[in-house]
Amino acid sequence: MHSYSELLSLVNQKIATTSYGSNPKELYEPIEYMMGLGGKRLRPVLTLMACDLFNSPVEQALDAALAVEVFHNFTLVHDDIMDNAPLRRGQETIYKKWNMPVAILSGDLMMIRAVELLAQTKTDNFLPILSVFNDTAAKVCEGQQIDMNFETRKDVSHAEYIEMITLKTAVLLGASLKIGALIASASEEDATHMYEFGKNIGIAFQIQDDILDSFGVTAQVGKMIGGDIAANKKTLLLIELLESVHKDDLKTLLALFEETNQEKKIEGVLALYDKYQIKLFAEAKKQQYLNDAYAHLEAIKIEAKKKEILIHTAQDLMERMS
Amino acid sequence: MHSYSELLSLVNQKIATTSYGSNPKELYEPIEYMMGLGGKRLRPVLTLMACDLFNSPVEQALDAALAVEVFHNFTLVHDDIMDNAPLRRGQETIYKKWNMPVAILSGDLMMIRAVELLAQTKTDNFLPILSVFNDTAAKVCEGQQIDMNFETRKDVSHAEYIEMITLKTAVLLGASLKIGALIASASEEDATHMYEFGKNIGIAFQIQDDILDSFGVTAQVGKMIGGDIAANKKTLLLIELLESVHKDDLKTLLALFEETNQEKKIEGVLALYDKYQIKLFAEAKKQQYLNDAYAHLEAIKIEAKKKEILIHTAQDLMERMS
Repeated sequence: MHSYSELLSLVNQKIATTSYGSNPKELYEPIEYMMGLGGKRLRPVLTLMACDLFNSPVEQALDAALAVEVFHNFTLVHDDIMDNAPLRRGQETIYKKWNMPVAILSGDLMMIRAVELLAQTKTDNFLPILSVFNDTAAKVCEGQQIDMNFETRKDVSHAEYIEMITLKTAVLLGASLKIGALIASASEEDATHMYEFGKNIGIAFQIQDDILDSFGVTAQVGKMIGGDIAANKKTLLLIELLESVHKDDLKTLLALFEETNQEKKIEGVLALYDKYQIKLFAEAKKQQYLNDAYAHLEAIKIEAKKKEILIHTAQDLMERMS
Repeated sequence: MHSYSELLSLVNQKIATTSYGSNPKELYEPIEYMMGLGGKRLRPVLTLMACDLFNSPVEQALDAALAVEVFHNFTLVHDDIMDNAPLRRGQETIYKKWNMPVAILSGDLMMIRAVELLAQTKTDNFLPILSVFNDTAAKVCEGQQIDMNFETRKDVSHAEYIEMITLKTAVLLGASLKIGALIASASEEDATHMYEFGKNIGIAFQIQDDILDSFGVTAQVGKMIGGDIAANKKTLLLIELLESVHKDDLKTLLALFEETNQEKKIEGVLALYDKYQIKLFAEAKKQQYLNDAYAHLEAIKIEAKKKEILIHTAQDLMERMS
């Protein structure tokens, strides 16, 4: 069994030694830039970890692990255009540093390179792996569109919100684990439990991310605090607030949606979050998905001791960001 | 052997009966719209044709054929954003009819669905097919970027121009044929000759397209005449003109690049094209690539009679557009 940091070091080494192409440079420099921005590398580490758990050499899953990371970064490059985001991991986005066409096209190429990397995997059973990848990739796009739809809707329900973050964020964590498990020839049942573990951790992680967007610290989170509030984004926090507020406060909230002074707007919404204990509500919801995740982990037919690394990874993730 | 119209009818039937998904509709309606806009369906027909030539049932190549067409349409959706194009096949582009984020995301999803369709192919040898697809997809992106780079460069050579259209347009025609040939278990050598035939036809076809952009008729071509001239686009015509013009006419040409009255600009550049017989030059260049294409067709180890359908297809294509 490899430790998280051993696996991370393998991933980083793989990233450092992988070339995506060179000509034209306008297309490949942004890809190198994006892949070099760092980040937690959580998804590729999960792929290696899953492969390791089912007793295959992690090297076998290295191309697939990078495929997942390149795919994830492709979605970020395109999301940054759609969200008009200036910063990513504290650095300029491709869209801002270069321009929109370059961001579209280098993103497209990253998607293609991701499939190419996945296809390098030494396995007798490639099609089920490709199928998990494709299903997940489509879901991530659906999630992004549903997320954008929320911006102009006033009636988003809890269930719709959870569906959106499941598609946009959580399924890729599940897929990262499932792909690693399939490469190691795990049973379909165990691979599916791995998927569900990752997916539920992912939902919890996204709820945490929403909490941090309103209650975190800029330097730690690496992006502007209150960005969701400024954009009237329908997070679990805002959905719960809309369902909880009394009449008078609703008037205040609706006025805040129209407020053009961003500082005043963020301050006002945060005050309402405090008044209605929205953070506590979100923390409880997060715990519910963590519990589901652990139930699936429990069901996987490998010795309990081996599962500890997944539990620690999930805990570290939540603690590091809280 | 199936005729072109039989294969086209199979492709259209496949397109009409394929669903790409339904929820969220903001993502899937644009895909249905784009796939329903029509077009020549040349690429998927070529895939079926190649499969047929090597004696496999064309139904075996139907998913791959659609994959190629969906991929092609994905590139068009994204190109239309980058080129700020209002019309595609005489209809509004997705980018104009919906918006930029929808065009980015529905394009992304089309790319994913293309890989998914390709993976449906019943074959014992999927990886070489996927490899042709991925290599080609990357080249198409490179070609689009090189094309965009040309807009701000003044020193584009003939060779660079040909490389660009090879990547952006021609390799996909080659790949359409090669994928069909590989599905039918053709030898690597024959499959490569098919690729080179398609690629060289594609180069000729693109030169033809450039000729038509300046010398065609709107209703026939389905897009604005003189669009390349208006955008100062480095086509083979303009490159040749820049290399041929005398000093006085160069001054006129450089002034035309800055001309804001589009009608005057197009008229002025067309007059120079006439004066320097640029159309004749381009027609000769086109013929050179057609000759190369036929040499590769000649080398394929199937009976001469069977090759006629490819010759007729290439001829029809050139004549229909002239």
